[in-house]
This record gives sequence, structure tokens and C-alpha cells, in this order.
Amino acid sequence: MILLKCRYIATFNTREEILENAYIGIDEKSGKIEYIGKEKPQKPYDEVIELNKHVVMPSFINAHTHVPMVLLRGLKDDVDLHTWLNKYIFPAEDRLKATDIYYGALQGIAELIESGTSLFIDMYFYEEEIAKAVMESGVRAILSRGVLDITENRTPETEVKKTLDFLAFLERMWSSNLETRDRIFFALGPHAPYTCSRELLILMREKAEELKKKLNNVWINIHVAETRNEFEDFLEKTGKSPVSYLDSIGFLGSDVLSIHTIWVRDEDLAVLAKNKVIVVHNPSSNLKLGSGIAPVPKMLEKGIRVLIGTDSAASNNRLDILSEARLAALLHKGITGNPAILPAKKILRMLTIDAAKALGLDGLLGSIEVGKQADLVIFNIKKTLQAYPFHDIYSLIIYSLDLRAVEKVMVKGRWVYDNGQFLTIKNIEKILERNAETRRRIEDELGI
Amino acid sequence: MILLKCRYIATFNTREEILENAYIGIDEKSGKIEYIGKEKPQKPYDEVIELNKHVVMPSFINAHTHVPMVLLRGLKDDVDLHTWLNKYIFPAEDRLKATDIYYGALQGIAELIESGTSLFIDMYFYEEEIAKAVMESGVRAILSRGVLDITENRTPETEVKKTLDFLAFLERMWSSNLETRDRIFFALGPHAPYTCSRELLILMREKAEELKKKLNNVWINIHVAETRNEFEDFLEKTGKSPVSYLDSIGFLGSDVLSIHTIWVRDEDLAVLAKNKVIVVHNPSSNLKLGSGIAPVPKMLEKGIRVLIGTDSAASNNRLDILSEARLAALLHKGITGNPAILPAKKILRMLTIDAAKALGLDGLLGSIEVGKQADLVIFNIKKTLQAYPFHDIYSLIIYSLDLRAVEKVMVKGRWVYDNGQFLTIKNIEKILERNAETRRRIEDELGI
Repeated sequence: MILLKCRYIATFNTREEILENAYIGIDEKSGKIEYIGKEKPQKPYDEVIELNKHVVMPSFINAHTHVPMVLLRGLKDDVDLHTWLNKYIFPAEDRLKATDIYYGALQGIAELIESGTSLFIDMYFYEEEIAKAVMESGVRAILSRGVLDITENRTPETEVKKTLDFLAFLERMWSSNLETRDRIFFALGPHAPYTCSRELLILMREKAEELKKKLNNVWINIHVAETRNEFEDFLEKTGKSPVSYLDSIGFLGSDVLSIHTIWVRDEDLAVLAKNKVIVVHNPSSNLKLGSGIAPVPKMLEKGIRVLIGTDSAASNNRLDILSEARLAALLHKGITGNPAILPAKKILRMLTIDAAKALGLDGLLGSIEVGKQADLVIFNIKKTLQAYPFHDIYSLIIYSLDLRAVEKVMVKGRWVYDNGQFLTIKNIEKILERNAETRRRIEDELGI
Repeated sequence: MILLKCRYIATFNTREEILENAYIGIDEKSGKIEYIGKEKPQKPYDEVIELNKHVVMPSFINAHTHVPMVLLRGLKDDVDLHTWLNKYIFPAEDRLKATDIYYGALQGIAELIESGTSLFIDMYFYEEEIAKAVMESGVRAILSRGVLDITENRTPETEVKKTLDFLAFLERMWSSNLETRDRIFFALGPHAPYTCSRELLILMREKAEELKKKLNNVWINIHVAETRNEFEDFLEKTGKSPVSYLDSIGFLGSDVLSIHTIWVRDEDLAVLAKNKVIVVHNPSSNLKLGSGIAPVPKMLEKGIRVLIGTDSAASNNRLDILSEARLAALLHKGITGNPAILPAKKILRMLTIDAAKALGLDGLLGSIEVGKQADLVIFNIKKTLQAYPFHDIYSLIIYSLDLRAVEKVMVKGRWVYDNGQFLTIKNIEKILERNAETRRRIEDELGI
């Protein structure tokens, strides 16, 4: 039993309370918050931690990444998407082995953790290796095996099989380690409407419906309308935009995470809103690849839930959700000319309670409330100059602080990060060296 | 005499050499680099510093800020510019005293230093206090007394007098402390075309010409075309854009730093190019205040020199030139749809050698070359996960690293920062507390 004595608690509860000089009592066994209050609880706690220079808030949800791609960070920058993918990323990925993915994932998860993230949504291959890394590192994740069937030797059936094989793997993990049931979640991962056949997309929708009978949560995450080319090709070939095409085949729903979603017309936004689709905004990656800027303020106006993701370190090149949040907060003000849009508190909600609600996980996490899981990020607001002076906690975190201020991260009542130390990921230095070695091997093989 | 043994040196010399495992010899007395080479020099050095996990490069030039405004950081965020200025910033500034400015400047300079900055361009009031802070902290600055005459009790004469009083102050500093002559520079600071009368602007241009007879360098920095309102008002009242208005009164020249310069038509860009005006781009502030986005790629195409600044911590809310550089690199790729635009190396040039050239200071600084000043920023590329793996040093610094990787900063052969310690700014904790106290006083007085 741990008791945190906190200078500030930004609860993100329904009243959006900020508590000053208050306590959080945590039951490590269940991972639950069992007490919140200004009074010191009577009950004895094993450990009392003084956080008198700190802001405690719910830890962050990074809604889109490909976590092992730290291995391909900066493989090539400042080139167009087509060159980037076909000349660099795809050939490099062909050379990645299962073990590489495992160690890449461990490093990626460490980077997520140090920016205060406790839950991430992932799509990649060798996803079992990523699941192992998540299991060991103690964070939460929604994991999907990325599938597509436009390339040789792949059919809708091979891709459904990969998906179900990955689910079977998770089911074994859930049975052998009950604790992972509310930590590691399954999603379907059709890559994109332009890389998946209509048949595969329809099969994915059918599987989602079928799986809902046995799983509490099933999501489908898919890259949608990322580039102008994709949008224009769809219009030319089908007479429909990517969004309206997905709607026409009955693919969309409130379980769909539509990633990027940059090239959308007003009627596409109406379709997304009608189907309660969740959009995931990845501003750094979208800017860096020259893809464009998703009309987030318009989406929010229409009632579409928008979450924030970093995308992978190959295109970002960081997995720092704080940088991403600041960029999202700034970017749309400049684009719309409205400095009042996407205020700091709203951005932080998009990373916490709003994300949890959109994912249907708000019974479990997303705010600091008794009965919810203790998933916490703790900022030291005396550690960096940027914290002096401050007026508003939300604005402090979004506009002023950087990763130097992230002091501790707790997931499920367990410390995973403390003052630069990764408590659940052992030998990070060795992992970094191994990953650098993997990268050298790939660069050698590719001759770059 | 200090000898640095460097893993990588990004020289930014004319051949843009990157040296591996090479030495930099520094004469602390003159502040000059006296040796660069792969061979260890014969001559004995007092101190040899091993930088075997490091990238050494020329330290950064932050081309626009109001450094003491760290005092007003986050005073109010997420509101429109008019409310922000008139309800919050101006009333708060009215309450700042000279000593407040001095301590605010010391903190601001510390924040500049920790992001690797050694030269900044400033415009504010009580500029003498800022000059004192620059003198003591050992960095370089181009300082200007901000003036305007649209408010009561101000005339072109009162404003010219303030400007010349500030110059007289600097002249006394230069005489009593010869070493400050190549460290602290004078500029004229008419605030903006909409806050200065035509008469004042013309007087500023005349003073610039006059002062060039006795000073090696004179610049005029001025906020130009920051908001759509300013642009439209000018068109309505004068039939001219802010840029063409300044041109019509003979104000523009290669000594003019045109800050922001967002609302410009193609013909304005032609005017800026013709007059060799230097533009200063401040993307965070421009986005955050909803002002818009300067057409930087178009400016560069037309041969306009563009530098990067953070603007003040009141609108940024950081003075972190690395964040600013990353944002500039990403933003224009997304806006233009061209991921190859503003590559990492170009962005770093804009912060170093290109800035030095534009300012006419490239004989003194801006690259690592024998005979130039030892103004250096040193990144530790083993300290953060984000540095693993990397392929290209420029891309590593711009896209991947954050302030955690800035390990040391040297200005004029003197260490000013080392591993989180400010070596020339004593008692930073006391300064921070004093500034927080100043802020509380102002908030109390304003009732916010």
C-alpha cells in the first residue's frame, strides 16, 4: 500500500478538480486507487512518498505508433513519402527478425514511458514480440497485427489467419498470466483502404463483430486518407473518397480508429461523425512526411472524438507524446487563426480521459478517481527553469515543460519509471547497443 | 588553453565538413579557436577534455526574443492577441521595475544557454538591465531599446532619446570593459510600423546611417506584418501593405531584421528581397497567438535570409531554440506538402552560419574554424534513448534530440553551462524564486 502526498493532483474527474496538498492511496495488488483526499487517511500505509514539488495526473494514452520502429529512426529524413517507404522503410523492414522486433519494442516502450505514457496503440508485424515486451515492461497496450493483401503471396485468408494467430497468442498470454487481461488488449489491424482488398476489409469487420461475443473490447485501427495521392486515387478509381468508400462497404463504426485522416471533405467528416469513428491525429509525422494537416478543430466541432499519437520513430522521430501534444495545441491555432482553439486542458483531456472514454476504457483508467487504476505521471515542477513562474497547471504541462520534468510514472500501481531509471526494463544500455547493432546490420545490407 | 577531443565536429565551414575523432584547440584569453585537426597538436594544453560521446557544433543564434518576459510566461494562454496584450501583457509590463527586468533577464539567458544558444537578439525596455545580465552571464547579444510613439506622452524625440541613452550606456560598458565589444551589440528597436509614427521610423533609419560612421555594426529590428489585422489596416489606411509602406518611406535595408513577417504578398516578398531585408521566423509564437505562418520556403526561394527566433516566453512559452528549430523544420513540410523542404542541415545553418552571415558577424562566429570564436554547443549523443540509433548528425539534432542532450555550452572560449549547471549565472535557484515572487506580486496587483 502506497500513499502519495501530492502538491497538486490534476484529477481529470468529471468536475475537473485540481486538488492541492492532497493524498492518493494506492493498493499495489489490485493496482487501484483506493483513497483520494485532503486528509491523511487513518489506515497505515507501507510507504508514504512526498511529492511536494509535483503535479500528479493520469498518465498518457498514445493512440498510434509502431513501437519497434525506433530501430529505423532517421533511417532517411527529408525525402518524399514514396522514396522513404519504398527505398528505405520497406526494404529495412524485410530484414527485421522477430528478436529485433522484441528489443526494438523494449526501447520504444521505454521512450513512451519517459514521456509519461502508460497505454499505447500499436500496429506492426511480429506483434507477439511486442506483446512480450509489453507484458514484461508493465505498461498497457492495444496491439494489432498489421495486415494487407495487395502484395504477392497474400490473400484475405492469409491475413485473417495472421490476425487470429496473434489473437490465439494473446489468449494464451491472458490464460497463463491473468494480470495481463486488463493490460494488453487485442485490435484488428488492416493497414489501409489502399493496401487491403475490399474482401479483406469486409472480413475484418465481420471478425470484429464475431470477436465481440467473446472479448470485452475489440477495435479496428486503420490508416485512412493520409495522403493527397490516396484521396485522389480513390476518387478516380471508385468515385468515392477513402472515408466514403469504407462507409459504403459497412466497415466504419465506433470501434474504428481512423489514423491520420487528413484528406477529408466536409461530407467525409459527416460520415465519420455519423459512424462515431475515432480519429487519431499524428501531427509531427503528418508534417514531416509532407502529408498535410488533419482538420482537427472541425472534427471536434462535429462531435468526432480525436485522440493524439506520435506515429513511429521512423517518421516522428521521437515517441514523445508531450512534444506531440504541444505541437497539436499550437498548430491548429495557427492554421485557424484562433488562439483560443484546442486549449491546453482540452489537449490533456485528449491524452487521458477523452481517450479512455473513446476507447471504452474509462471504467478502468483515464482519470484519478477512487476505484480506477493507478496509472499516473508525475511532473517535478521545480526541476526545470521552464516551470518558473506558472499560472495554470494545464498550460504549464502543455506549453512549458519538456521531458526533463517527467519524474515518475506508475502503471497499475507499480512504478515503471523514476528519475531517469526504467524499473521494469532491465539493462536498457544493452538494449540500446543491441538495437544500434541491428541498425548497422540493416544499413550494411541495404548499402546505405 | 583547452583541448577538446571530439567524437564528431559539425563544423559548418564552407565545405560543411563533419570531422570524426578530431581535436579543437582553444585559447581562452582571446576566446579563439586556434587549432582544428585529426592529429593531436604537439603544443601542451592546460586541459584536455574527452568528448567521445559527443557532437560539437557552433552554438545557436536566437534571432528574436524579449528575454525578461520569462516573468510573464503563461500569464494567460489560449486567448486572442488583443485580449492577451491589452488585458494581461501590457498591464503586467507597466508593473515591472528595473530590478525585475535584471533578474528576469538572468533567468531568460539561462534558458537560452541550456538550449545551446550563445547569441540572442533582444528588444525590450530597461534594456540596460538586460545588458548587465548579458555582461555578467558571458553570452553574446544584440540589444535594442524597444520604442514606439503612438501612446500618450511619447514623441519621436522622446523615443530617439531613449535609444541614444541606451547606446550611451553601452558605450560606457564598452569603454570600461573592453571585452564586451565583441559580445554585446547595439541595435535600434522601433516596435512596429503600426506603433511608430512615420516620423519616428524615418528618424530611426537616419540614426542607423549616422551610427554606422562610428559603430561596426548597427541593425534595426522591427515587428512587421505579424497579424492579418495589421496587414488589412495598413492596406485600408495607406493603400499599402506594412512591407510596402516601410519601403515607401525608405526604411528598409540589409540591416533590417523584419520580425514575424507573416502577412506578405508576393510583391512584398519581392520588396524584401530587393532591399536584402533579413526575416526572423518565430513559429511557436506565431501559431500560439493565432497569427499565422510565414511563407518561409517562398522567402528562401527568393533569396531572402531567414533566421529563427523563439520570441518571448510569454507567447512561446519556452526559450528553447531546439523546439523552435524542430517546429520550423516540420511545419513548412506539412504546409507545402514537400517533405524535402527545409532539411535538418539547412535549419541548423539558419541557427548558425547563415545567421552569422546575415548579421555580418561571420568573421567572428557561426562556424567552427581556426581564428573564429569558440562559441560551441556540445551534445551528448549517448545520454538519451532518442539518440539510438542515428544515421545523420543534422537530422539527429533537429528531429530526435531534446534539451536533455545539451551537455555543455562555451561562449568566447569560456564554459557557461555544464551538465545542468550554469557556470556564469550564480544562485539560479534564488533568481527563480525571486522571479516567481515578482510574478505573484504582479498577479496580485492585477487581480488575476
